[in-house]
Amino acid sequence: MSTTQDQECDQVTLLTGRGDIFSGITVDSKLLAKTSALFEHQLEQSLVAWRQAKRRGIWLSIPHNRTELIPIAQKLGFILHHAKPDYVMLTHWLDEKEPNQLPSYAMSTIGVGGHVVNKKREVLLVEERFAYVKNYFKLPGGCLDMGESIESGLEREVFEETGIRAQFRGILAFTYKAEFRFGHADVYFGCLMSLDENEEDQKINYDPGEIAACKWMSLDEWANSS
Amino acid sequence: MSTTQDQECDQVTLLTGRGDIFSGITVDSKLLAKTSALFEHQLEQSLVAWRQAKRRGIWLSIPHNRTELIPIAQKLGFILHHAKPDYVMLTHWLDEKEPNQLPSYAMSTIGVGGHVVNKKREVLLVEERFAYVKNYFKLPGGCLDMGESIESGLEREVFEETGIRAQFRGILAFTYKAEFRFGHADVYFGCLMSLDENEEDQKINYDPGEIAACKWMSLDEWANSS
Repeated sequence: MSTTQDQECDQVTLLTGRGDIFSGITVDSKLLAKTSALFEHQLEQSLVAWRQAKRRGIWLSIPHNRTELIPIAQKLGFILHHAKPDYVMLTHWLDEKEPNQLPSYAMSTIGVGGHVVNKKREVLLVEERFAYVKNYFKLPGGCLDMGESIESGLEREVFEETGIRAQFRGILAFTYKAEFRFGHADVYFGCLMSLDENEEDQKINYDPGEIAACKWMSLDEWANSS
Repeated sequence: MSTTQDQECDQVTLLTGRGDIFSGITVDSKLLAKTSALFEHQLEQSLVAWRQAKRRGIWLSIPHNRTELIPIAQKLGFILHHAKPDYVMLTHWLDEKEPNQLPSYAMSTIGVGGHVVNKKREVLLVEERFAYVKNYFKLPGGCLDMGESIESGLEREVFEETGIRAQFRGILAFTYKAEFRFGHADVYFGCLMSLDENEEDQKINYDPGEIAACKWMSLDEWANSS
């Protein structure tokens, strides 16, 4: 290693971040070195410091525009944990005496479906544009977004799919599927919704990108359909 | 570009994979070219072919030992979707006329807690080793693993934390937190569990890596504790 490189190493800012009650560190991404070579020295030296300080779980979030750093972190013992559009999270468990206790990421989606009944005793149903079974009508609904409540996610999805504004009243039932998309689970909440007096006459206005048909069906007809 | 390089480009195997009802493709990771340079040509040419075939959503899973390919895929328009320890998933929405309709990844953990009561009307409680509040006893339990049912996840967690084998009987109540770890949500199911006749006298045997204390507490004492 040349003297210039040694000096570069010495000048590298050690990574620091937020500590937690588990003796872990969540690295501050703003401190990541500007080049891959400097980052490698920085991470190597930071690991030495964290081991000396008896740190256990290290959380390293690589921003989406620095993903060239991922193989370097992996070479130094980091493991993929989860990713969102704007980052990839890697972790490194440093405690050699105890097993890895780092929590896993989310393993389930939450789906919601709205049971809206009007004064004529008709239920609001949709047929999906992309469906495995044709001519199959189901409750409008969909997946909750990150950070969304069951109530507001339900009202948003029903409005997006049907154009009808209805209010959450309560959860009627739920199902849990252990294996859904990408091996993750899914919880589906079937919810009762109601229409205010002034909302009974709303026009159906569905999103053709997602929905093939939307209609009110009498409860009797729905109960007798397969 | 030299003739040799041209020939290399021509020789690249186009990426293919499993189609879906949404006109999407889930790329077969076994077909990824061996080098970064070849992969770039392969992905460029595959994108041309997918666009000609009017494919919409492309799912590209990069194995954990090929993460140097991630920046190349991003350069060609792919976006981070999710990651597990063994891969990073990226997606590319090719339809220019319709908005991106690719589903999101899991956005919630599922936690389970077991309410085990013995014949002496005592409830099984634990104190976590790493806790924000000291001397706080709670129901044993934890997060479901991928692919795990509520019933078996509950019985596993209660056994791991206490050494007691008890059986799932039913869900008593649940809570939903919209913002939990990493911004994802959490559903927590409080569940009733029972002990068979021959399981009443089991010894408590907790995991000191995770649990500071475990004990049976009278229902009256528990009801009166804060």
